[in-house]
Amino acid sequence: MTPRLELARFSLNQITVEQLSLPEAIEACGRAGLTMIGPWRHKVAEMGVEAAARAIRDAGLRVSSLCRGGFLTAPDAFSRRAADADNRRAVEEAATLGTDVLVMVCGPPVGRDVDGARAQILAGIERLVPHAEAHGVRLAIEPLHPMMISERSAIVTLAEANDLAERFDAHRVGVCIDAYHVWWDPRLYEEIERAGRRILAYHVADWLVPTTDRLEGRGMMGTGVIELKRIRAAVEAAGYDGPIEVEVVNREAWARPADDVVAEACAAFLEAA
Amino acid sequence: MTPRLELARFSLNQITVEQLSLPEAIEACGRAGLTMIGPWRHKVAEMGVEAAARAIRDAGLRVSSLCRGGFLTAPDAFSRRAADADNRRAVEEAATLGTDVLVMVCGPPVGRDVDGARAQILAGIERLVPHAEAHGVRLAIEPLHPMMISERSAIVTLAEANDLAERFDAHRVGVCIDAYHVWWDPRLYEEIERAGRRILAYHVADWLVPTTDRLEGRGMMGTGVIELKRIRAAVEAAGYDGPIEVEVVNREAWARPADDVVAEACAAFLEAA
Repeated sequence: MTPRLELARFSLNQITVEQLSLPEAIEACGRAGLTMIGPWRHKVAEMGVEAAARAIRDAGLRVSSLCRGGFLTAPDAFSRRAADADNRRAVEEAATLGTDVLVMVCGPPVGRDVDGARAQILAGIERLVPHAEAHGVRLAIEPLHPMMISERSAIVTLAEANDLAERFDAHRVGVCIDAYHVWWDPRLYEEIERAGRRILAYHVADWLVPTTDRLEGRGMMGTGVIELKRIRAAVEAAGYDGPIEVEVVNREAWARPADDVVAEACAAFLEAA
Repeated sequence: MTPRLELARFSLNQITVEQLSLPEAIEACGRAGLTMIGPWRHKVAEMGVEAAARAIRDAGLRVSSLCRGGFLTAPDAFSRRAADADNRRAVEEAATLGTDVLVMVCGPPVGRDVDGARAQILAGIERLVPHAEAHGVRLAIEPLHPMMISERSAIVTLAEANDLAERFDAHRVGVCIDAYHVWWDPRLYEEIERAGRRILAYHVADWLVPTTDRLEGRGMMGTGVIELKRIRAAVEAAGYDGPIEVEVVNREAWARPADDVVAEACAAFLEAA
């Protein structure tokens, strides 16, 4: 199918169609006229990173970012070294896949130690930055919704992600803004403006009312209550004009035909994002 | 039973034993050696506020606060007037029950309008304050966890609650700090210090991992990952020495014998809060 120009900024984050393998997702993008994909590492691993890079390139697609590095919190030195090694591999995979953005989901606190987690995350990023820079990859710190703190990330506000990113040069570390994770924040717009050229990725989905699944219950754009157009306008006013990844983590959508989900995502993107 | 001195600051928020009527909860407090209760309005309404006040007084209990006023966001003037009238009644009920603290759960956005909700909440509090002051009742703005924004409250951080409260004299409007709602916040400790003498209430429960019920899945103190002792120490360092309400909103606990739940709450309070 001819690329659809009106979807030029649309990137299909692969977890939106978690039911597909990476080759299947690549084909689904082609059928929908999409030109960008945001693969996840577990899907890349299934076919091998070199083969994945080749398949994506051969299909005429670009990789908007790689999901995900991170999980930098660890109970002991052994686990920390394992996490470091895994993050270095994530950097290399991003470079091989032809993207310069690695999304970082920073990891939950160990036990009750939230401050300790934040310190470990900073230290982990410090250790990773030289390797990332050597591979031309920038780290995009993604603040996650505070309801996910114990499973995914001790970094739960954009202010905190900005604080972290500003410890590094802007060409090394920035932020990934996901509307689903940050929309509730009373400081959202000032922090988007502050992030400025450090915005390395922008993700969209919607907040359903009620939200019945805390981790895998996101809605398609337009079906929930997030002011998506306003947030996108703010992100663009801050200087971001890159890919917009559609990342609708929804268990029910994964049980449906993926082409239907992709078609709905395209329509929702044009209508509501 | 003789009041247990080591539980002198313990107040049983009634929703911890939602399976009980107010008379039953009063009796349960007596059996457990407790001296304070935090009733909810729907339970007060079942027996009538005058009878409730008498029953609580006759049992030798004090009311730590009344839950809850608020829900100040409304789609139209008719609903807004109804909310105002209801909040004035809540103030009067608090006064009748002998407490000077009305906990305010401010209300969710109407549709997608988060900013509009925040403005409505400020305006609603402004309209309520004169009536509250006339009845000797202070309004305690409770920030709720951001995952509850669409059901309960557009005020989701302690910073925001402090911003709101500071629009008014400290003897009129303050904040209610519930550890369950605020523990994830990277700005928590600075905002507790800032709240200072405006802290009108302190609530405890724990964050379970995993949290399987977004609204009614709180844990007993010590069973989750909140740094409860650290937060309490900060609240006390800020100047608060009032009641500590145990507010464990847990659907499973409501299906169990209430005396067992109260006994566990007492032990957990002494051990972990």
